[in-house]
Amino acid sequence: MKTTKENNKNFFSGIDSVGNTPNKALLTDLYQLTMNAAYQDNAKEGKATFDLFIRKLPKDWNYFIACGIEDAIDYATSIQFSDEDIEELRKRTALPEEYLQSLKGFKFEGEICAVREGTIISENTPLLRVTSTLSQAQFLESALLNIINYQTMIASKANRIVNAARGAPVIEFGLRRAQGEDAALLGARASYIAGFSGTSNVKAGIEFDIPLSGTHAHSFVMSFKDELSAFRAYAKTFPNNPTLLIDTYDVEQGARNAAIVAHELQEKGFKLKAVRIDSDPLAENSDLVRKILDEENLQYVGIFATNDLNEYKINSLQGHHVSGYGVGTENITCKPVSAISGVYKLVEDEDGAKIKLSKCKKTYPGKKQVYRIFDADGLFDHDILALESETIEGAPLLEKVVENGIRVSPRRSVHEIRDYALHQVSLLPEEKRSIDSQSKYETIPSAGLVALTESLSKQFGGQ
Amino acid sequence: MKTTKENNKNFFSGIDSVGNTPNKALLTDLYQLTMNAAYQDNAKEGKATFDLFIRKLPKDWNYFIACGIEDAIDYATSIQFSDEDIEELRKRTALPEEYLQSLKGFKFEGEICAVREGTIISENTPLLRVTSTLSQAQFLESALLNIINYQTMIASKANRIVNAARGAPVIEFGLRRAQGEDAALLGARASYIAGFSGTSNVKAGIEFDIPLSGTHAHSFVMSFKDELSAFRAYAKTFPNNPTLLIDTYDVEQGARNAAIVAHELQEKGFKLKAVRIDSDPLAENSDLVRKILDEENLQYVGIFATNDLNEYKINSLQGHHVSGYGVGTENITCKPVSAISGVYKLVEDEDGAKIKLSKCKKTYPGKKQVYRIFDADGLFDHDILALESETIEGAPLLEKVVENGIRVSPRRSVHEIRDYALHQVSLLPEEKRSIDSQSKYETIPSAGLVALTESLSKQFGGQ
Repeated sequence: MKTTKENNKNFFSGIDSVGNTPNKALLTDLYQLTMNAAYQDNAKEGKATFDLFIRKLPKDWNYFIACGIEDAIDYATSIQFSDEDIEELRKRTALPEEYLQSLKGFKFEGEICAVREGTIISENTPLLRVTSTLSQAQFLESALLNIINYQTMIASKANRIVNAARGAPVIEFGLRRAQGEDAALLGARASYIAGFSGTSNVKAGIEFDIPLSGTHAHSFVMSFKDELSAFRAYAKTFPNNPTLLIDTYDVEQGARNAAIVAHELQEKGFKLKAVRIDSDPLAENSDLVRKILDEENLQYVGIFATNDLNEYKINSLQGHHVSGYGVGTENITCKPVSAISGVYKLVEDEDGAKIKLSKCKKTYPGKKQVYRIFDADGLFDHDILALESETIEGAPLLEKVVENGIRVSPRRSVHEIRDYALHQVSLLPEEKRSIDSQSKYETIPSAGLVALTESLSKQFGGQ
Repeated sequence: MKTTKENNKNFFSGIDSVGNTPNKALLTDLYQLTMNAAYQDNAKEGKATFDLFIRKLPKDWNYFIACGIEDAIDYATSIQFSDEDIEELRKRTALPEEYLQSLKGFKFEGEICAVREGTIISENTPLLRVTSTLSQAQFLESALLNIINYQTMIASKANRIVNAARGAPVIEFGLRRAQGEDAALLGARASYIAGFSGTSNVKAGIEFDIPLSGTHAHSFVMSFKDELSAFRAYAKTFPNNPTLLIDTYDVEQGARNAAIVAHELQEKGFKLKAVRIDSDPLAENSDLVRKILDEENLQYVGIFATNDLNEYKINSLQGHHVSGYGVGTENITCKPVSAISGVYKLVEDEDGAKIKLSKCKKTYPGKKQVYRIFDADGLFDHDILALESETIEGAPLLEKVVENGIRVSPRRSVHEIRDYALHQVSLLPEEKRSIDSQSKYETIPSAGLVALTESLSKQFGGQ
């Protein structure tokens, strides 16, 4: 087993996915602090439970893959304010001095239940359930959403792309268009968890033990006197399974030049791994290039396609001759979705179950559990969202991961999470893995939950 | 003047926008390293120039605001590989040992010319021009694009939102939906530079000296026995200019409850600053709430609107009664654009000017300068993109910021950059600031550049 940063990571060391200490106390919206100050000032310190769930599946999506759970736990269990932090808050906000003083000892001391990272999950289904004092539980909102929303979105998007590629490897190429460094790193991790085969992002490869992939750019070809010289130069340095980018000038001539180099490599006992095509029309280009390579007896040379690919474009290339895909912008930024609707809502406090009634923004009240229901073939049929007090036959998905503010579930490696996620996907009925079917994986509220929701709606709707 | 982290920042200290040391040597695509290894192996170490430019304005956009320039400079001038980095590369890649050894001393020793951060810029116009050895200049590509693409996209988007708000303050609320922590921080900074008035993001406020803003959530209201009790509790803790969220249950009743608290505050010599509405229909809701507040003689109480706002929705609220906006998801993720098409292309090497001819992916060859041309009123008319050797009457935009690998232009504060950006915007003709006009700010290639492009197209098109 390779020694990697990932493997060496102490499970309880409090080092998050991007290798930073996860203390992100200041990574919060000011209103978490103003609310907490008002709670303190008004002696509101009873227990409360919040659910983190995603309101709605984006168009065409049938499920989410929960991602970012391990980072969320590391975050919640490592919050602390330094004296310098408090001094900055004193200068920049109207927070009362008594509250500022209390921040010195502030930490999360409650309980978190979470679905295992990599779990298939539907809309309106808690990924995390946080119970603590009202102020501690409230405080986590902004950073938990920042962590979970992006990583879950990318894992879910990437898995759609993997499904469209039907077994052909997909490599993550998004660094240059990712929305910042964290997005590039965590997006590469989420994509790998969701079934991508590798990444071009060197830092992500090292941090998360993801296979690295990369060859050369058009500029490399342009910097030599002609394309064939560039190919020969690259193959000289990397004779073992190189990939050559063949469309700097003309894709047909590029394929012929690559074939020349492939034969030269063969004579030295090496093999050209693949050619890469980075311009449309990819379908026709791949057919043309395959024909040229086959005529040259280079059936073993693969064709790797890139160029603003997404799940729909990859799907449309089926039946042509692409053997691998590189996907950048559309995956790493989840274009055009950009953001999923993860929210964090109060569902219970010392006065009992709570509900929010703003139009289109309903929440399910009460402390709840999610149960997975299997069909006769052992595949995922649906989930049931039930009150914790109900008895449901099914596998509960929310497991206790933090107790009294301490992590009680060891941080899993990326590889464990990836294996688990891909096993989850394999247990979905076929039609749910289609990128264009409208067959959403569903969560159904239990009878008890429906009854509570109706009764609270009547009670608070009349306020 | 307030003492802030921003103000205290040593201009040459090599601390980037998010307060990290900017050494991001590993934040690169593997192909930068494989290309560099092949350049070394093939003795290709002449000088080369690359342009970083954005191919295309997104739909409806008329200009970009260049952002991320200061971070890009910090990045380029701080690259270094540690022994541990090199060891990781040795284990994970096929890079030749000779190249790995050379990474120990690798740094950027060339020249960078850049537009000043905050500059209005059009499509196909260099924001950065990098000249160094081929390998050094090539190496910067991935991280420079990661830095510039996101920050420029957000500054440009945010400025559209500010334009739509026509003077009403806009607050940045994107932390929970941003694509990671960096995105949240750098997006808040870019939005402030582009004219936003503040942010809810506490860390961004502290790092960049941005005014902080925040009040309370629906959960705060829900945690009290009724809405009026919640409002009174909040106003007790924050009597000085509080804002109250009035749509947890019913916006009309919420406005009446807020009015009660406003009068109670008035009796104690305080004022309610605003009410916040977070649900549609915002237009009708704002009119209704304004009427209620006016009937209560609370003309001074503002109406702050949130709820998935963007420039179009804000525009549609003109003529209604919103006095300030909070904008989150659509700004911080630049939904649905998600990514702009910033690229980094070889334009010249030791053999002369270079061109890439792939369909729809043409580049302007040669070492170039950008000149701003003003109209008779002193407003920006257009830019001219010319070869450096040409003489053009106009203000050159690319200034030398790095010489022999050393920063020669001090890092400017966020406030300086914001002032400059807003001054730039004020010098655009009115129609270019419209969010729905099709009046793109244009860059026109010079006669010399057109001639060179045509001649190289003929020469390389025939290859």
